[in-house]
Amino acid sequence: MKKKLNVGLIGYGFMGRTHSNAYSQVNHFFDVPYEPVLQVVCGLEENVAKDFAEQWGYKSYTTDWHKVIEDDNIDQVDICVPNNMHAEIAIAAAKAGKNIICEKPLALNAAQAETMVDAIEKAGVPNLVSFNYRRVPAVTLAKMLIDEGRLGKIFHYRANFLQDWTISANVPQGGMATWRLDVKAAGSGVTGDLLAHCIDTAMWHNGQIDSVCAMTETFVKKRMHVETGKVEDVGIDDACTFICRFGNESLGNFESTRYARGHKSLYTFEINGEKASIAWDLHDLHRLSYFDHSDESIVRGWRSVHVTDGDMPYMDKWWVPGLQIGYEHTFVHQIADFLENLAEGKPASPSFREALATQYVCDAVLASAKDKEWKTVKKA
Amino acid sequence: MKKKLNVGLIGYGFMGRTHSNAYSQVNHFFDVPYEPVLQVVCGLEENVAKDFAEQWGYKSYTTDWHKVIEDDNIDQVDICVPNNMHAEIAIAAAKAGKNIICEKPLALNAAQAETMVDAIEKAGVPNLVSFNYRRVPAVTLAKMLIDEGRLGKIFHYRANFLQDWTISANVPQGGMATWRLDVKAAGSGVTGDLLAHCIDTAMWHNGQIDSVCAMTETFVKKRMHVETGKVEDVGIDDACTFICRFGNESLGNFESTRYARGHKSLYTFEINGEKASIAWDLHDLHRLSYFDHSDESIVRGWRSVHVTDGDMPYMDKWWVPGLQIGYEHTFVHQIADFLENLAEGKPASPSFREALATQYVCDAVLASAKDKEWKTVKKA
Amino acid sequence: MKKKLNVGLIGYGFMGRTHSNAYSQVNHFFDVPYEPVLQVVCGLEENVAKDFAEQWGYKSYTTDWHKVIEDDNIDQVDICVPNNMHAEIAIAAAKAGKNIICEKPLALNAAQAETMVDAIEKAGVPNLVSFNYRRVPAVTLAKMLIDEGRLGKIFHYRANFLQDWTISANVPQGGMATWRLDVKAAGSGVTGDLLAHCIDTAMWHNGQIDSVCAMTETFVKKRMHVETGKVEDVGIDDACTFICRFGNESLGNFESTRYARGHKSLYTFEINGEKASIAWDLHDLHRLSYFDHSDESIVRGWRSVHVTDGDMPYMDKWWVPGLQIGYEHTFVHQIADFLENLAEGKPASPSFREALATQYVCDAVLASAKDKEWKTVKKA
Amino acid sequence: MKKKLNVGLIGYGFMGRTHSNAYSQVNHFFDVPYEPVLQVVCGLEENVAKDFAEQWGYKSYTTDWHKVIEDDNIDQVDICVPNNMHAEIAIAAAKAGKNIICEKPLALNAAQAETMVDAIEKAGVPNLVSFNYRRVPAVTLAKMLIDEGRLGKIFHYRANFLQDWTISANVPQGGMATWRLDVKAAGSGVTGDLLAHCIDTAMWHNGQIDSVCAMTETFVKKRMHVETGKVEDVGIDDACTFICRFGNESLGNFESTRYARGHKSLYTFEINGEKASIAWDLHDLHRLSYFDHSDESIVRGWRSVHVTDGDMPYMDKWWVPGLQIGYEHTFVHQIADFLENLAEGKPASPSFREALATQYVCDAVLASAKDKEWKTVKKA
Repeated sequence: MKKKLNVGLIGYGFMGRTHSNAYSQVNHFFDVPYEPVLQVVCGLEENVAKDFAEQWGYKSYTTDWHKVIEDDNIDQVDICVPNNMHAEIAIAAAKAGKNIICEKPLALNAAQAETMVDAIEKAGVPNLVSFNYRRVPAVTLAKMLIDEGRLGKIFHYRANFLQDWTISANVPQGGMATWRLDVKAAGSGVTGDLLAHCIDTAMWHNGQIDSVCAMTETFVKKRMHVETGKVEDVGIDDACTFICRFGNESLGNFESTRYARGHKSLYTFEINGEKASIAWDLHDLHRLSYFDHSDESIVRGWRSVHVTDGDMPYMDKWWVPGLQIGYEHTFVHQIADFLENLAEGKPASPSFREALATQYVCDAVLASAKDKEWKTVKKA
Repeated sequence: MKKKLNVGLIGYGFMGRTHSNAYSQVNHFFDVPYEPVLQVVCGLEENVAKDFAEQWGYKSYTTDWHKVIEDDNIDQVDICVPNNMHAEIAIAAAKAGKNIICEKPLALNAAQAETMVDAIEKAGVPNLVSFNYRRVPAVTLAKMLIDEGRLGKIFHYRANFLQDWTISANVPQGGMATWRLDVKAAGSGVTGDLLAHCIDTAMWHNGQIDSVCAMTETFVKKRMHVETGKVEDVGIDDACTFICRFGNESLGNFESTRYARGHKSLYTFEINGEKASIAWDLHDLHRLSYFDHSDESIVRGWRSVHVTDGDMPYMDKWWVPGLQIGYEHTFVHQIADFLENLAEGKPASPSFREALATQYVCDAVLASAKDKEWKTVKKA
Repeated sequence: MKKKLNVGLIGYGFMGRTHSNAYSQVNHFFDVPYEPVLQVVCGLEENVAKDFAEQWGYKSYTTDWHKVIEDDNIDQVDICVPNNMHAEIAIAAAKAGKNIICEKPLALNAAQAETMVDAIEKAGVPNLVSFNYRRVPAVTLAKMLIDEGRLGKIFHYRANFLQDWTISANVPQGGMATWRLDVKAAGSGVTGDLLAHCIDTAMWHNGQIDSVCAMTETFVKKRMHVETGKVEDVGIDDACTFICRFGNESLGNFESTRYARGHKSLYTFEINGEKASIAWDLHDLHRLSYFDHSDESIVRGWRSVHVTDGDMPYMDKWWVPGLQIGYEHTFVHQIADFLENLAEGKPASPSFREALATQYVCDAVLASAKDKEWKTVKKA
Repeated sequence: MKKKLNVGLIGYGFMGRTHSNAYSQVNHFFDVPYEPVLQVVCGLEENVAKDFAEQWGYKSYTTDWHKVIEDDNIDQVDICVPNNMHAEIAIAAAKAGKNIICEKPLALNAAQAETMVDAIEKAGVPNLVSFNYRRVPAVTLAKMLIDEGRLGKIFHYRANFLQDWTISANVPQGGMATWRLDVKAAGSGVTGDLLAHCIDTAMWHNGQIDSVCAMTETFVKKRMHVETGKVEDVGIDDACTFICRFGNESLGNFESTRYARGHKSLYTFEINGEKASIAWDLHDLHRLSYFDHSDESIVRGWRSVHVTDGDMPYMDKWWVPGLQIGYEHTFVHQIADFLENLAEGKPASPSFREALATQYVCDAVLASAKDKEWKTVKKA
């Protein structure tokens, strides 16, 4: 008999849906020791919260997140609100002794993130930050291949996260759908939203980033603000490119933009090692490209690995070879791993502290772009 | 308030999982007028049925499918058992006035399928055969483009369904995992299992197939039978290729095999019209290839359309542009459409009668291969 | 010091250019024992022949092919005229004891081809039919891999040759540019023009084709004839699909059309063996796709081999890894091999006799389509 | 009657071959007003020069480049020697009033390049630097599309040039085959060899680069020197990444390395504009990827344009649609354009002055990497 785990979700937007789906699906496909029970969803607008609760099977809804924290019946708080609210909620939840799952980036900036890590670690509560792309099976497979030493010494790590949805000057900032363009809600633009994913995966794959040199741009300088109704300065970075050094001396090259016409959500990485290379992209997330120099030369080439076989990460839980899974499954994997670790008393990853390390890189990137100079990255 | 729809599932194998998932997910993503309630699952082994019920939230389980049919509380019977049991169950369910969803192919052969269609139509019950690939968004988009006349006159329709999982002579026949290799359970090999999908989609896209000429092969002639424990003759077709004429005079070329080393489940089609062409493959199911001859010549080329935008079929229900869905979603779409039609009193598609048309093609294909001559296809 | 080889070229069209280029280039890249000397070019229109001679460095030109044959100074006759003139010229050249290179298909039909083979073999002259695609490095590499047994038992051979240049009803038949649409000049349509290439390569790779069943279509029934100025019936096949059995029991599937919108000259083949598979396409001719089932499962996938390294067929003669060659190089390879064989007194391949075998398949294909029944293929 | 143009080639290595081929082929395919006559080839080793002359049809050979310059019969000097010899030869040739074609990069550094530009411009001789990749038809097509305004405002320009041939520490430096690893002969590593190509194309496409920030690495610090026979420090950059700003405010990201396992010679670029994007890679040089946002949304996607049609740059001179050309053709196009311009008295491009602009970027890149700070680029 599985143990019930009572969940309170705060935030009913895009991420609220992905997390709700994960809780709903995890026991259909994974044999985890807990059964998440969707107790309460919290959001700003009552009727939206009510509909969301009905759609996903939450037993109740509220518009006041404090009630979720104060509810002794709640075991786990799941934070899916804009970045500027992560800290207050997470710290309160930590004090209340809840398990915490928090969307990324952890905070508006590293200073704020540090207070969160302090609170979480003082409280000793299970915690995880939702850098979900680690759990794309192909991305997890890449990690396995690296850890097995198949690539040998790493020379290069390259990652891009390219979108094109904000090119029009008519896209507003602020509000439910476009808070990511409002610096007060988001903290930064593509750096916190997209590069944070790339950085998290890169450091997981390739270790600490030591120093960075970045360039940012805000192509559209003013946008209508949904909340004020006025045209206001845009405070976020529309695009950010940086070069860096990893602790293992490999060279990094990262770029993100929302002005790459033709790319909807193209997160790619490529890793070049002495013996082998790996490449991946989110637009075809179920494939891993792999080049093994030890292959016989006349038949050597990049292999397109269709990551759907039962011996590949997570894939024994789904369908049969050749049948791909999609985006939302990464969150199912994340919660499955979290629940496994919870039962075994092991920390989940990426933890708040790991997310702080990513935040340090983001902060260094933004500072570097502002000061036009190389910056050393603080260690978490 | 949504109307409850009580479902009885017969068969807890691979398809039992995909259908259960569809019932679980449909109301999370689609605003359909019914709430499916998973009442009972039926399967041969009691402990497996029990576990399955628990995993998917069925209220009860049974090992006797008659009980599902006889239960007045059940509104809808969902048939996910091997092909040789479809007819008896479907006919009984029709007589009992149940909605029926049946896995494909409809029957062991057309004669049997005719009796099923008779029963279903006499009973007038809502029905659908689970040719799920129609509801891959890219495949549905292809249908839209054809119906809008974008391709103009069709010259060619090509489809392949290539796998490689039975190359080893050690794969047995019969039993839970390999009944598809046992002619008594399956009726045929790749023709009914794989080509039936290609034929269903092709006739949906391109109309009736009038005549066929086929070639089949059974590469491994004898395999251990799981149920008898003896090495027995293999009665199925391991591979089948056929050429054909459509009613619109276009030329068809179809091939399926389980001996195409390197292809796990590569279902592809390509349609060449006077003005445009379309191609698709299941290994990257979220993409549609489209060539439009009216494009200016110096920038004309095959377009790789990432079918994830909100204006593409079904995709407004899922995530955001660039984030792909996977295989199981086709079943969610299928049940969503079925429930919509049910509320509106409209027939769902593909109906048993449409599946009979596919069966006629399959029968003609097998007969053609046997007699080594062209065969005319019976009309459903 | 290289031996001079005096060449007379008959036909100054598209193929006349590819052959002239091959003679010009062969000694720049290959260390062959002969130096071809471009003595004379022959074509119908004097001013065109004159210009062609000047452009390619032929010492003289003529409008009467008999003069080329009768010229004792000519060592080698190269036939690049429409198909209906191959036989007469080749037989005369054989009688005159010339080396003969002849464009494909060998003849209008097998009966005619037989007379050519008789003449050539009686005369004992060095001969080669220009099925140039064998000598794309990737295609040659495929042959090597098959011969080394890397694929194991072959199950399937599939080939397509898809074009789209005759879809418009305004394309005429006959004349210099469109004689391939005139059955009197070409003998057949896509069967002789395109499928002949596929069949030649397939039998080289996979052995004799024993029996075929085909379907053809002429989509545009009447076209203006350039020579008569009248709209006349079209006698060629616009499209042809056939299924077949090879002598090694593998299944073949071939298709060609000039009505595949979006494909300019897409010649593809795929070979599925027990242990490995190979695929190739002419649109990216410098790549070979290779799947090796013995690769470790978690990193197994189709390899995209960029056939530009020095250890790949012919590629030590060209540039450096990563730098591709193109279409015309196949003719350079062909003449290089021919000259090597000539010096060693060895027969070149494909010989007239091998081309006759291809012609037998083409004839069987056309007969099968006409009679709508399977046909056994005559052996050459 | 074409005018003869007497050519003296200095350097018989890889580039000597590509240039010789271009002179041999240009009149076979292009109707240019000059007929290049291969008068003399010059190289260090007499027997190699002799063989080269014989292979390519040079009338004579020499081991002393001064003789080429001093020969009044020579109209055009073509410089294909290592970078450290470009300046002296080019300046002498300019003084002698010869046309000059020089391999890239122009010089060891900008200071040296300035002296060359001074000499060339003072002499007023026709000149061209062999940045051949501009004349890949797909790359030229990209330039056309940009100049027609199809991309609108440019946001991003990205280019990579990735190789893997020097990963082994056993590769030596210096000598005929590996002078590119010897800083004295090459001036720099990947910056001058590979990034110079990317920079030339980028500035041609997208205008001046204003400022750069770079990072370089020498992975293998010591290598055997072919000429001294001793293990010596490696002075070149094995890898170089830089970010930059263009004059039009777009953001640039460039990377080159010889340590990208799996890439033989992967030169790629991608340009993102407001209305459209373009991407290309050298490994499939005959294709251009094009995304046009004005396409109807449901069929919008990256188009893979097979650049082989007669209305595409240079392609009316070659074969028929679908049949690709390769690497060496870029040099044929280059000499064809040069000769056209020569006849019309127009300057060719890229001129020595344009190559100096590229050299300024290279110098700024190397200085930036050394000083770890942003550098402003000098204007040519």
